[in-house]
Amino acid sequence: MYNAKAYSAASATSPLASTVIARRDPTPNDVQIEILFCGICHSDLHQVRNEWSNVMPTVYPCVPGHEIVGRVTKVGSAVTRFKPGDFAAVGCMVDSDRTCPACKAGLEQFCPNFTLTYNFPDKHLGGVTYGGYSDSVVVDQHFVLCVPSNLNLAGAAPLLCAGITTYSPMRHWGVTKGKKVGVVGLGGLGHMGVKFAHALGAHTIVFTTSPGKKEDALRLGADEVILSRNADEMAKHAGSFDFILDAVSAEHDINAYIQLLARDGNLVLVGAPEKPLALSAIGLLFARRSVSGSLIGGIAETQEMLDFCGKHNITSDVEVIPIQKVNEAYERLLKADVKYRFSIDMASLKSE
Amino acid sequence: MYNAKAYSAASATSPLASTVIARRDPTPNDVQIEILFCGICHSDLHQVRNEWSNVMPTVYPCVPGHEIVGRVTKVGSAVTRFKPGDFAAVGCMVDSDRTCPACKAGLEQFCPNFTLTYNFPDKHLGGVTYGGYSDSVVVDQHFVLCVPSNLNLAGAAPLLCAGITTYSPMRHWGVTKGKKVGVVGLGGLGHMGVKFAHALGAHTIVFTTSPGKKEDALRLGADEVILSRNADEMAKHAGSFDFILDAVSAEHDINAYIQLLARDGNLVLVGAPEKPLALSAIGLLFARRSVSGSLIGGIAETQEMLDFCGKHNITSDVEVIPIQKVNEAYERLLKADVKYRFSIDMASLKSE
Repeated sequence: MYNAKAYSAASATSPLASTVIARRDPTPNDVQIEILFCGICHSDLHQVRNEWSNVMPTVYPCVPGHEIVGRVTKVGSAVTRFKPGDFAAVGCMVDSDRTCPACKAGLEQFCPNFTLTYNFPDKHLGGVTYGGYSDSVVVDQHFVLCVPSNLNLAGAAPLLCAGITTYSPMRHWGVTKGKKVGVVGLGGLGHMGVKFAHALGAHTIVFTTSPGKKEDALRLGADEVILSRNADEMAKHAGSFDFILDAVSAEHDINAYIQLLARDGNLVLVGAPEKPLALSAIGLLFARRSVSGSLIGGIAETQEMLDFCGKHNITSDVEVIPIQKVNEAYERLLKADVKYRFSIDMASLKSE
Repeated sequence: MYNAKAYSAASATSPLASTVIARRDPTPNDVQIEILFCGICHSDLHQVRNEWSNVMPTVYPCVPGHEIVGRVTKVGSAVTRFKPGDFAAVGCMVDSDRTCPACKAGLEQFCPNFTLTYNFPDKHLGGVTYGGYSDSVVVDQHFVLCVPSNLNLAGAAPLLCAGITTYSPMRHWGVTKGKKVGVVGLGGLGHMGVKFAHALGAHTIVFTTSPGKKEDALRLGADEVILSRNADEMAKHAGSFDFILDAVSAEHDINAYIQLLARDGNLVLVGAPEKPLALSAIGLLFARRSVSGSLIGGIAETQEMLDFCGKHNITSDVEVIPIQKVNEAYERLLKADVKYRFSIDMASLKSE
């Protein structure tokens, strides 16, 4: 074991503050990474404030962060894919059982025995796993990703959650050239959805309630922008979308978007609104449409996504902050006051 | 033109009563059919009582009926697949544009220009189309199906709507041997779903709120019956179903069934509850599940379904009634007092 610097919350109402945590010494299959950047995901805030107490109660102290990029500092004897000095990344998971049907299908995100990057039982040290708001992490090589060397590291960090969450459903439901794709909700997830849909060659349309977001949507790669409150504009697109990515976490009317799907079209939810959504069956029946959910992605697909980003030079639009501003960033996140993701420069932790 | 006997409603509040309607003389592509049996679908009742006034207002007089089987009495000069004396059937559609992408894909049910069997503009005679509560009908050969000669005709009639409505989604979403399939709602649609799932080789489980339905579900082909109000029994099956057919038209909790779906599993709605259903996004996200809708089936698939029924000797469980009891049957339908579909013996119309 060794000590690592980190930021942790001591309770649901405490601000995040500087601390020291224990990390394991690398086992033969482990990769030790010096964390350079860690993205801030809305999940971090939910977990820190124990807002998921009914399904995943928070164990304190809690060190969040699952959008991790850094440099390999040490590898175990059985590690073949990494060597010290390589850029590496870690996402939402650090382990799984490797034997269940989901794992065998490369879909570790659906493994009933996965280990999430933070606030999950730590099989090595006991207690719970600690995430990426830290200067160092040790992770089994199977859950460590390679980062293409051309990518900006601060912008690459959010790919590990916001990126794979939007890339995976597009690949699964066949977003390609010739398809008409919509993105609802231009935030941390949605802005990645626009970049991926565009790079995959789809005709990409952003739905927004704010005329002010139009310019930015076009800059991100949208071919068109639809003001979702304009019923006439919406009606013009009825029955025409092959796929719509719905990245809205607040309550909203999904039926308005279902009506825009073509036959066999799919509305995929990647946000998780707290209250149930109202679903009209008729909208599904009349064109054999579907509403689905999707959750991050498997490890192989995460690597595929990173390689795709390398090829197309895709990163998240980030505002880089020092870790000392993390509590302020959380407050701004609640007001959607960020374009489009915060990325913590972990060099700032050295001064703690 | 010639006169045909029929039963029609004169208004939303009138009982169905004996009448005479005009049918066209067969054109070169038409098949004239002496109707022997016509099933009663809940749609008939909705349409007769103008309960869909906002989307498909009823034009009176209204002659419902879209589960038609009979005997060919005359064919046009271009008709090759039928000859007088053949058994033939007609379902929910009597025409479509034949040129749109849906038609070209054999999915006439999604053609934007289809003609439904009743209460739709009649391109030949003007006014609206008249359905199968009649002694005769004339239909373009493309929309006429062959009825396997081994099937009981009274029981075959409901295959044209209840049958294809449940068969089509099972084929589309790959119900086969080795799959675990659920059916929610053991009524006109549901009981066909059980027969098809069983005949397709799936492990078939019926969900019911009534312990009294268990025996009948097993008789219809179910391998197991789950009392949906028993939370423990439901929990035992969490995450295990590949496909669930939801044939409930009343308000109900779909999330309880979504939780039972395996990864990539699909809950398919074939009923159309009036009010929106409450949908929990989380249930979809955590196993990439989908909720979809399905609507009858295309013409080629309807023929495939009838041939499948011929091979497996599948018909609907029907209570045969004379047309004079149709108003009484509607009242019983509202109380779900039928096992499982009414089939009108059209010979009874001769005495009118």
